Amino acid sequence: MELTKLDADELPAPLADLRKAYDELKAQNLSLDLTRGKPAAEQLDLSNELLCLPGKDVFKAGGTDTRNYGGLAGLPELREIFSGPLGVPVPQLLALGNSSLAVMHETIVFALLKGPVDGEPWVGQQIKFLCPVPGYDRHFSLLKQFGIEAVPVPLHEDGPDMDVVERLVAEDASIKGIWCVPKYANPTGAVYSEDTVRRLASMPTAAKDFRLFWDNAYALHHLTEDAVEIANVLELATAAGNPNRPFVFASSSKITHAGSGVAFFGGSPENVAWLTKNQSFGTIGPDKVNHLRHVAFLKDTEGLLAHMDKQRAVIAPKFEMVLYMLEKRLGGTGVAQWSKPKGGYFISLDVLEGTAKRVVQLAKEAGIVLTPAGATFPHGDDPRDRNIRLAPTFPDIREVALATEGVVTCVLLAAVEKLSGN
Amino acid sequence: MELTKLDADELPAPLADLRKAYDELKAQNLSLDLTRGKPAAEQLDLSNELLCLPGKDVFKAGGTDTRNYGGLAGLPELREIFSGPLGVPVPQLLALGNSSLAVMHETIVFALLKGPVDGEPWVGQQIKFLCPVPGYDRHFSLLKQFGIEAVPVPLHEDGPDMDVVERLVAEDASIKGIWCVPKYANPTGAVYSEDTVRRLASMPTAAKDFRLFWDNAYALHHLTEDAVEIANVLELATAAGNPNRPFVFASSSKITHAGSGVAFFGGSPENVAWLTKNQSFGTIGPDKVNHLRHVAFLKDTEGLLAHMDKQRAVIAPKFEMVLYMLEKRLGGTGVAQWSKPKGGYFISLDVLEGTAKRVVQLAKEAGIVLTPAGATFPHGDDPRDRNIRLAPTFPDIREVALATEGVVTCVLLAAVEKLSGN
Repeated sequence: MELTKLDADELPAPLADLRKAYDELKAQNLSLDLTRGKPAAEQLDLSNELLCLPGKDVFKAGGTDTRNYGGLAGLPELREIFSGPLGVPVPQLLALGNSSLAVMHETIVFALLKGPVDGEPWVGQQIKFLCPVPGYDRHFSLLKQFGIEAVPVPLHEDGPDMDVVERLVAEDASIKGIWCVPKYANPTGAVYSEDTVRRLASMPTAAKDFRLFWDNAYALHHLTEDAVEIANVLELATAAGNPNRPFVFASSSKITHAGSGVAFFGGSPENVAWLTKNQSFGTIGPDKVNHLRHVAFLKDTEGLLAHMDKQRAVIAPKFEMVLYMLEKRLGGTGVAQWSKPKGGYFISLDVLEGTAKRVVQLAKEAGIVLTPAGATFPHGDDPRDRNIRLAPTFPDIREVALATEGVVTCVLLAAVEKLSGN
Repeated sequence: MELTKLDADELPAPLADLRKAYDELKAQNLSLDLTRGKPAAEQLDLSNELLCLPGKDVFKAGGTDTRNYGGLAGLPELREIFSGPLGVPVPQLLALGNSSLAVMHETIVFALLKGPVDGEPWVGQQIKFLCPVPGYDRHFSLLKQFGIEAVPVPLHEDGPDMDVVERLVAEDASIKGIWCVPKYANPTGAVYSEDTVRRLASMPTAAKDFRLFWDNAYALHHLTEDAVEIANVLELATAAGNPNRPFVFASSSKITHAGSGVAFFGGSPENVAWLTKNQSFGTIGPDKVNHLRHVAFLKDTEGLLAHMDKQRAVIAPKFEMVLYMLEKRLGGTGVAQWSKPKGGYFISLDVLEGTAKRVVQLAKEAGIVLTPAGATFPHGDDPRDRNIRLAPTFPDIREVALATEGVVTCVLLAAVEKLSGN
């Protein structure tokens, strides 16, 4: 039933039905959570061998005693495993601590206080970042933390709206960066096309120290057999004469253990030297034993890819469940659209304009916690109040089904309320 | 033989002897290193159980799945073990990443960009830190990295010269901090007296956001059976009405494995909330599996102290060896003085004024690498060119003996050269 096409006098009946369905939902006293992109215990179990590695007599890698200080670039053996999949040559790829968010934080801090390789310190300047929306809330809050203005730009299925991006960066020298999740973007699953990557890598920018903050968080996180590839941003930027433009970030957090994985940074030789030099004042080096542990567990790139197949086997059915339930009850209603991602951790659900907050509130009262409406926009401000991010990985599949069923009821109820004018 | 009392015509004979001894030293083609305060492999071996921990089926602590994201304060079970020895209540003690230097770096970055709990952001202000000298080179280079002026103050056996410190901080509001290694200071082994700690905790400061950067790196690193205690800076500061003054830092790097240990931060409830809030924008939490691994290995505070006894058994003989050789050949010569530390990682050697650089150069040419002369002063500038830091932990005891023997020859040769006027 296409709800948006109903006449005013046709709405009371479905409204009454949905209120009844919602009361039944509440009566279930659910306690479900679709908020965070956290791996489920079952996914973490896949890497439990790590908990006994590298082994009592195994602490050397090459000539390095991994137990001692030093080695700022991280273990070459681990960088070797990730180099191909991330498209970054080993000498330009650093293996660091347990959080790629922390590496993003560091690069911004060093850009602020020391300046990038080709610019003055950003601190004291009024600077801006472009933020494709909907996007990742933690990217936006990093900007807010340091008083950097977030400028939303539309995100399409093949990446940010490049006409808008090109125009803004060409005319405004205070725009110093853009957040990009180029593959299976959070939350829409968008995959940047080759044309998008090429334009980002080569577009003229008013700021000579403009940076692509290239958060390749889901590089290996396929949900289908179609292992999507994206263009190599480092190569394209170098070819376009902008070798220092991309800062590439990645991590093994959603590959092995979320809190005790390894973060990676990739960039031009100059950017890598810049980060390492700045880090050298403030660390004794990353946890190389954890690097070695990951080498012992993953073994090689092939082992890494085989491991990701196991991850997919656990989470793909959860995504299929959500998509099935959304289609079954929201398909053809005209009050919702959603992404059908080929990878990543999220489904982006657009509900009837002006009802996202209401949906989240209804769900909450029914015991289903959703990411706050607006979280996918800078300052939590979704101008059309319609985007909701669903994160199906953490709950078990029965809970995913129950929660989605409940969310659908809330989406429909909020829509019919709205259409009814109350 | 008291060399400083020799007449000019008495010097040629010892000079010739020492030149001969030095030539013989060079002929040995040594390749020794007394530079860095790194644990020896034998020390690291003491913690090799960690390399198989926490074990495949052991990943929960309390209700927490340590493998997943979150838990910014670190595992309570680990904070419990270190709380007593560090003199910080568990709720005020954070267990963080693998590097206490990184935590110091972070606190300075947040003070610069966000301001401390009781002050404006430091960035853009001309600020200064007091630096007791001789001190730790990495403390000084952190200041240099961020353009903070280092103001040297004399360090005595019971701590910084408090008359000087009190005068400077009372009159100069741009002095925002002081580096303190309160127990077994790097490099002199100085232990701050109760009176010193009390004065630091209570002295009036012109800057209302003045901080004690309290690097308690060697809290448990005794070299004798006399397990020295120092006064509790947090308690004294709180009692004096300055609860937010101390930032307490420590780590397990020189307890378990240097590169894969756990760093700690302690402070007032307000400071702890400040650090955690600022960190929350830029991390997914510390590596809790590594925290759990340390809990499994150390078990409790008693286990920690017993472990440190094993560390002492390995390194104390190396210190005794250095002290024995220094006394044997430099005692009574009048050209050198040295610390006799009861803990920590270093021996501070003061040679004849104006000869430290020459000693380091002579040693280098004989294949013995020493920490650069001046490294224990801000900007590498030892105004009297006399301090040399010896780090005896890393080499084996035979190498320690050989290296010290060689250094002594260089100290004597440089002194007699100097006294001879060439």
